[in-house]
Amino acid sequence: MSHFNRIAVIGAGLIGGSVLLAASRRKAAHSLSGWSHSKDSRQLLKAFAGVEVFETAAGAVKDADLVLIGTPVDKIRETLIAIAPGLKVGAVVTDVGSVKESVLRDAEVLPSSVTFIGSHPMAGSEKAGAAHAKADLFDGRVCFITPSGNEDAAGVQRLGDFWKSLGAITVECGAKQHDAFVAITSHVPHASAAALMLAVARSPEFNIAAAGSGLRDATRIAAGEENLWVSILLANADQVVAGLNSVEKNLQELRDAIKAGNKVKVESLLKAARIARQSLDSSR
Amino acid sequence: MSHFNRIAVIGAGLIGGSVLLAASRRKAAHSLSGWSHSKDSRQLLKAFAGVEVFETAAGAVKDADLVLIGTPVDKIRETLIAIAPGLKVGAVVTDVGSVKESVLRDAEVLPSSVTFIGSHPMAGSEKAGAAHAKADLFDGRVCFITPSGNEDAAGVQRLGDFWKSLGAITVECGAKQHDAFVAITSHVPHASAAALMLAVARSPEFNIAAAGSGLRDATRIAAGEENLWVSILLANADQVVAGLNSVEKNLQELRDAIKAGNKVKVESLLKAARIARQSLDSSR
Repeated sequence: MSHFNRIAVIGAGLIGGSVLLAASRRKAAHSLSGWSHSKDSRQLLKAFAGVEVFETAAGAVKDADLVLIGTPVDKIRETLIAIAPGLKVGAVVTDVGSVKESVLRDAEVLPSSVTFIGSHPMAGSEKAGAAHAKADLFDGRVCFITPSGNEDAAGVQRLGDFWKSLGAITVECGAKQHDAFVAITSHVPHASAAALMLAVARSPEFNIAAAGSGLRDATRIAAGEENLWVSILLANADQVVAGLNSVEKNLQELRDAIKAGNKVKVESLLKAARIARQSLDSSR
Repeated sequence: MSHFNRIAVIGAGLIGGSVLLAASRRKAAHSLSGWSHSKDSRQLLKAFAGVEVFETAAGAVKDADLVLIGTPVDKIRETLIAIAPGLKVGAVVTDVGSVKESVLRDAEVLPSSVTFIGSHPMAGSEKAGAAHAKADLFDGRVCFITPSGNEDAAGVQRLGDFWKSLGAITVECGAKQHDAFVAITSHVPHASAAALMLAVARSPEFNIAAAGSGLRDATRIAAGEENLWVSILLANADQVVAGLNSVEKNLQELRDAIKAGNKVKVESLLKAARIARQSLDSSR
């Protein structure tokens, strides 16, 4: 049970919509409100049990103790500006963006009467939109909470309890540290998968008959919506570029060993990769 | 129904074992024989219905009209030398290796009384060994058949019919063409996934809590057995190196656009990757 009376979700797409479904099922608040940028999505939200749907973002946040921003990373600042006048004194405001340091700067537009604390649930899909929302999206998933250290500790505790009530496992850390973590485990893999997909698609030797499940898996995330990912990659550019440089270095090392016919070296690199990959599974 | 009376599988691991299970279930021959390098695997094969297990490869090929070599690519030549004395006159010999040009050279050790034609079923798993064999492994999967053009056309036809009887869809092309196809759709993705996994595992910022399904999918194939993959990558080195150069070029293009904060460019690259990836799915 979380300690919020009314929860508003502003920008209810895949993640925000799933927060509404999960909060409704788990009875995480006495009332729920929602808003989405698109009229079609607002229409869809009306079918979500127990969710009051508003035509404006500022209307949806009225009286909410917890306001969760689900808009893309590059839209968070303008969303915060839009809702600022309607926010209840003492409200906790959070977001679900995949980067946290830039969002902390965006949150400077908020009045001092509310508390902003970033969130990032490690859940999602290459499919976007409230139509793909699921009540169990956060079950057993890590949710990062990134306090700046200047806010009220009680707000951090309440936000953590809220995510736990949706089934998530919370991990607290600073925004910069978070961005470094997700750069290497999420943003860099996304960019690498996209680069691999481009290399395959651009090859004159590409023949779809030869495409197996390995290629499909290795490139699955490259099917993600580019308008979401472009803002994530650019908002975390320094860390992403550093990670891509490392991928390039490792790729060159393996390529040079293959070119030299160095069996011992190729085998030892593949073995190190296999062991690292297997340890990802055993950690699940 | 295929036109072979007796089929021998030499090196019955994941693929060879699955051929035996599928041939047994589909009654693709009157009798089946099998051999595996390891004693444990031979023991396991004895539990496969209708398969006669031999202690030597030369013993297993006796009287077989079709001999299928399932050993790793770098062991095919020595396997062919070992079975050559026991081969029936007129037998068709094939393999299931992931590269075909180097195998064609290996097959020069065979007597002229048999016909060698390469095969490559596009089926597998990151799991190796007969313990993971499945009777339906080839259902609906592409199987390349790579005649040299110098063999008896009837043999090519019989081999194609055999794979079709196991549920596969056959595609005929030259060995060199095949190697170019699979370099870009299989070998290059494997090496890229391994390089990505190494970059992630070697990063001081790697935190397993931040690892989601995206990273797991993008690196899944890197969990494959290195002793199988090292021989595949080295046997197809020229084509693999060319493909990896292209991945590197695409990675640099994306990285440079991110570094420059070039939103239009990053978005257009991600969009091209998304469309290419979605077309892989729609082709299934």
